[in-house]
Amino acid sequence: MIRLFVQQPLGPGSRIEPTAEQAHYLRSVMRLSPGDGLLLFNGRDGEWRADIDGMSKKSCVLLVQEQTRPQVAPPDLELVVALVKRSRLETIVEKAAELGCRRVRLAVTRRTNADHTNVARLQAIAVEAAEQTGRLDAPQVVAPERLDRLFEGWDRTRRLMFCDEAGDAPPALEALQGASGPWAVLIGPEGGFDSAERDRLRSEAFTTPVNLGPRILRADTAAIAALALWQAAAGDWREAPGGS
Amino acid sequence: MIRLFVQQPLGPGSRIEPTAEQAHYLRSVMRLSPGDGLLLFNGRDGEWRADIDGMSKKSCVLLVQEQTRPQVAPPDLELVVALVKRSRLETIVEKAAELGCRRVRLAVTRRTNADHTNVARLQAIAVEAAEQTGRLDAPQVVAPERLDRLFEGWDRTRRLMFCDEAGDAPPALEALQGASGPWAVLIGPEGGFDSAERDRLRSEAFTTPVNLGPRILRADTAAIAALALWQAAAGDWREAPGGS
Repeated sequence: MIRLFVQQPLGPGSRIEPTAEQAHYLRSVMRLSPGDGLLLFNGRDGEWRADIDGMSKKSCVLLVQEQTRPQVAPPDLELVVALVKRSRLETIVEKAAELGCRRVRLAVTRRTNADHTNVARLQAIAVEAAEQTGRLDAPQVVAPERLDRLFEGWDRTRRLMFCDEAGDAPPALEALQGASGPWAVLIGPEGGFDSAERDRLRSEAFTTPVNLGPRILRADTAAIAALALWQAAAGDWREAPGGS
Repeated sequence: MIRLFVQQPLGPGSRIEPTAEQAHYLRSVMRLSPGDGLLLFNGRDGEWRADIDGMSKKSCVLLVQEQTRPQVAPPDLELVVALVKRSRLETIVEKAAELGCRRVRLAVTRRTNADHTNVARLQAIAVEAAEQTGRLDAPQVVAPERLDRLFEGWDRTRRLMFCDEAGDAPPALEALQGASGPWAVLIGPEGGFDSAERDRLRSEAFTTPVNLGPRILRADTAAIAALALWQAAAGDWREAPGGS
């Protein structure tokens, strides 16, 4: 069943006009017709079944029927990722959505060459991945910020896990034992953090260094591995199936 | 430092002639000259420093100096993956190498459309990823085989972990508690296993169903997540840094 993320409030009898891109997708890509059903979610009101009520060349109206799932909040996990090359960054954002991140923050580090990226495109990738992965919200993608600025404003109740290649960090599962509350995973640039960044990461009280094994991992592999380990050890992969 | 996987035995004073592709890479891509150093490994003799001894337009000779690391065997982990679409399969093979798989077996399932793929290309991707990830061997990529045939010949001392989306499988980390010995991870096609395959997976004594959380994961995400969880719970990500 097709799932669409919408901005509007969802309730029984709501009439929703999807965006022009969504209308095009429903009509020309998926070839739906009036009467066909789909699922809608907006990050606040749960998931709802809707029917296509009207469809023209330029627009489309969806009539919301009944709720299929109540809203649940995913675990409070964020990803902070350095601006790596575009295709890899897009993969990482897609995977962050599949792995239940609430927010993806983009960081400019000292070994990052770029200081900007197409945030709107990354946000669209996050929404599309959220639609396909079955979650009830979509991760927010935040515009790039310098890593030191990001640390200045850091909410110190949120722990930040980072992969410390050079140090003697404990294995990730050991470091995550008993983890609870809000967390974030930090993934550095392909060239790694520089020594000043590394010193700061080691000295801040909100950081947790972890070790991800003896092999060198690319940024996308490290991101997926770290997020999966967190969900398995501290997030919603711990629950028995049936819960969501 | 450049690392090359070679077939020849490695020892002090060995003279190695790399393949034409490797010679081209050293000369024209990396622009090395006689006297420059690199690292060699072959999956048997550890890692060795070598110098470029001679270089011509067509060939190249490497003179092996001293061992930099002794051979260690990675944990006995394999990946069995259904033939998914090419770009995703290439990503999965690359990640299997980064995540320490010894072997990647390709499977044709009932919902797999293809029954062949470019195995030589996948093997080259595995070798290149092994060179970059710093491991001392390269995963072997095995030609596609029908899943039922693969099960007929299965070594029953090797446990097979599979993601059971429909069932009530335990969370992955719970299922992997106390895991030891040889294991494999099975990743199905994008459309999932059919009911006969699922029944067989559930009834075989060598299989371990696991749950990877409430969201639907793409094949590449599931592969990376499952391999990372296995390495963290039962493989070489458990060890303190410094070991390899």
